[in-house]
Amino acid sequence: MTSVKTFGRLTSMEEALRLVDGNIRPINRSETVPLAGATGRVLAQDVVAPFSVPRRDRAAMDGYAARAADTVGASSSKPVRLRLVGSVRIGEIPSVQVTPGQCALISTGCLLPKGTDSVIMHENTELAGNQVVVFRPVYEGESVAAAGSDIRTGSTPLREGDMITAAKLGVLASLGVESVRVYQKPRVAVIPTGMEIAKVGSPIDDARVYDINSHTLASVVGENGGIPEIFDPVPDTREDLFRALNSALEHDLVIVAGGSSVGERDMMYELLSDLGRVLFHGVQIKPGKPTICSVVKDRVVMGMPGHPTSCLSNAYLLLMPALRKMARLPTRRPATFKGKLSRRIVSTLGRKVFMTVRVEGEEVEPAFKESSAITSMADADGYIIIPENVDTMEKGDEVEVHLFT
Amino acid sequence: MTSVKTFGRLTSMEEALRLVDGNIRPINRSETVPLAGATGRVLAQDVVAPFSVPRRDRAAMDGYAARAADTVGASSSKPVRLRLVGSVRIGEIPSVQVTPGQCALISTGCLLPKGTDSVIMHENTELAGNQVVVFRPVYEGESVAAAGSDIRTGSTPLREGDMITAAKLGVLASLGVESVRVYQKPRVAVIPTGMEIAKVGSPIDDARVYDINSHTLASVVGENGGIPEIFDPVPDTREDLFRALNSALEHDLVIVAGGSSVGERDMMYELLSDLGRVLFHGVQIKPGKPTICSVVKDRVVMGMPGHPTSCLSNAYLLLMPALRKMARLPTRRPATFKGKLSRRIVSTLGRKVFMTVRVEGEEVEPAFKESSAITSMADADGYIIIPENVDTMEKGDEVEVHLFT
Repeated sequence: MTSVKTFGRLTSMEEALRLVDGNIRPINRSETVPLAGATGRVLAQDVVAPFSVPRRDRAAMDGYAARAADTVGASSSKPVRLRLVGSVRIGEIPSVQVTPGQCALISTGCLLPKGTDSVIMHENTELAGNQVVVFRPVYEGESVAAAGSDIRTGSTPLREGDMITAAKLGVLASLGVESVRVYQKPRVAVIPTGMEIAKVGSPIDDARVYDINSHTLASVVGENGGIPEIFDPVPDTREDLFRALNSALEHDLVIVAGGSSVGERDMMYELLSDLGRVLFHGVQIKPGKPTICSVVKDRVVMGMPGHPTSCLSNAYLLLMPALRKMARLPTRRPATFKGKLSRRIVSTLGRKVFMTVRVEGEEVEPAFKESSAITSMADADGYIIIPENVDTMEKGDEVEVHLFT
Repeated sequence: MTSVKTFGRLTSMEEALRLVDGNIRPINRSETVPLAGATGRVLAQDVVAPFSVPRRDRAAMDGYAARAADTVGASSSKPVRLRLVGSVRIGEIPSVQVTPGQCALISTGCLLPKGTDSVIMHENTELAGNQVVVFRPVYEGESVAAAGSDIRTGSTPLREGDMITAAKLGVLASLGVESVRVYQKPRVAVIPTGMEIAKVGSPIDDARVYDINSHTLASVVGENGGIPEIFDPVPDTREDLFRALNSALEHDLVIVAGGSSVGERDMMYELLSDLGRVLFHGVQIKPGKPTICSVVKDRVVMGMPGHPTSCLSNAYLLLMPALRKMARLPTRRPATFKGKLSRRIVSTLGRKVFMTVRVEGEEVEPAFKESSAITSMADADGYIIIPENVDTMEKGDEVEVHLFT
């Protein structure tokens, strides 16, 4: 699994993804959450049904509970008459006894009274005094929700590893489950680095810039099943980085949001080589080349590029799959849009290009300014990927946009 | 906008959507949230840039800050020599003075020192003592991130109504904004009704069932920008329903999860007609016909069918768009999958059919059992919509699946 790459030899995105994937382990810790907080979480337990749903045969229609055998041959010209001996109340165990030739008024959801096996819908009957005139035969089990037809007692309607959707939450509720054991969310340290980086909210002069990357990274972490913890900006000296990394290794994943100087990149590489093993350094993608990934004390440490758009685009391409694997979430399937390029674009041979775009009607308009500009992403609706072997695309070419929302 | 429909005359889904939309108003209340909680929220303010990003011209590459005019005509055979007079440190206001014929060492992100207008990349230079040999001319502004090129001071990079994505959060951070005014989330009352409905966690006998619908509805509300509040189950007497509705009207939207008896449906209709105006009662969709929608004291009150799959499918089709309009969220674009039916299916002419399906490789396998079964949804990957005028679809027919996750 180890594969050390120097910055000179770029790793393909596919290989980078494979290397990250091979070193990421899903979280095994679990915790118990109430139903209200369970949507989107991943089950750490099988759910075995302690009883059937429905618990017993219930009416699936409004009408009369009866025995199918009593309705054989019923027709408009030759109806069958059943004696109405009572009714079933919703939410109560039926007290009415129905013997052959009899029936009981019933509404949807009521338990079938003893002695009945089907429900005759009102529209196939007429009431005449205490007689119900039946114009159509029913079969055994007609208009009945049979015991266990939804969930059978002892079965496992939900399994460890299932992500809880609204419907799966409904399954838990149907079984009376108030809380459930789910995998914990990965805890992710986000460390901004660089002498020029200032914490948002602090006063700055012209030579410093506010920390953008920690916030965009934390947002991606939070939206993909993780719990981000943003560190204070760390000056890019070896000692400071070493100290920050060491305390961050308590987390499940460590993301270092790089400053942008060559010196710092070299230092990160040396530090990560000394502390663990570097999986790759430099990816064949634009923007986002300077990404570095390593394993330190069993933890994946990703060093993201300092340019805000490079950092965020690599967060979508490389970090998100890693996060979702740790959080045991299914692959995210972004909504896509097929449209036509509004103008000719020039790409970079030999690197996969992530180009942000706006969707304007049927047209797809490049939104990319430069990788240092956060508005390259913020003003875009999504992105297109231009393959390594394509250097230009023409106005009118069809492209598939991966939408951000 | 008013249009009362009786249960006999079903409203088309398109008309139902239009009626709901015409009576839903986006929330106007706002609140201030820190950046850490801002992703996915909707701005209630324009964001005007108090300064430019970058604040001043910065190096976009590592190299030498110089004057473009000094490099005119430089080539490998006829290089230009500049005197290296110092360096710029990242995060500091440059103290070095660069006069014509001089340059200063600079790395990406550093402010350009006075007297320079461009950066000469290292790869086009050679260092010879205190001279930098330049083999290529640069143009003014080359390898420079100009002041305001990302965001100009006084401009409005984010506007009221924008949903905050990771990238837009980055824009806020770049401007040093610690917290931001966003629209409040709609508060949604979810009222389970029916004598047979028991609160999850309480003991029950065979005649009662656990409240599924409140939990599935609350999940959909929470995933679509709302704050659900689940009420205790309400017996379906007029008095109890009236009391529950009255206290629920403090919320922005009221959803009543119906019991399933005809009596109850009639009572809901009468109660909602008495209290306000009914927009529609009965929708041309299967499952989910019994949905009722009304406006009471300026609040939309939706009565959802009691069958768990009917309730949840209508939550996706009718409630979700309403919620997202209230929460000012963009239309949800579910991921879709195109596949081929694994077998022939029979639909219902005159009603739009929402059929849950599983995706198995390229095949789309119907997952629907019955509308009373929550597993009709929980065991499905998504759903297909079969139009009103289609009664059968053949094995191998291409269908588009709207995926749940």
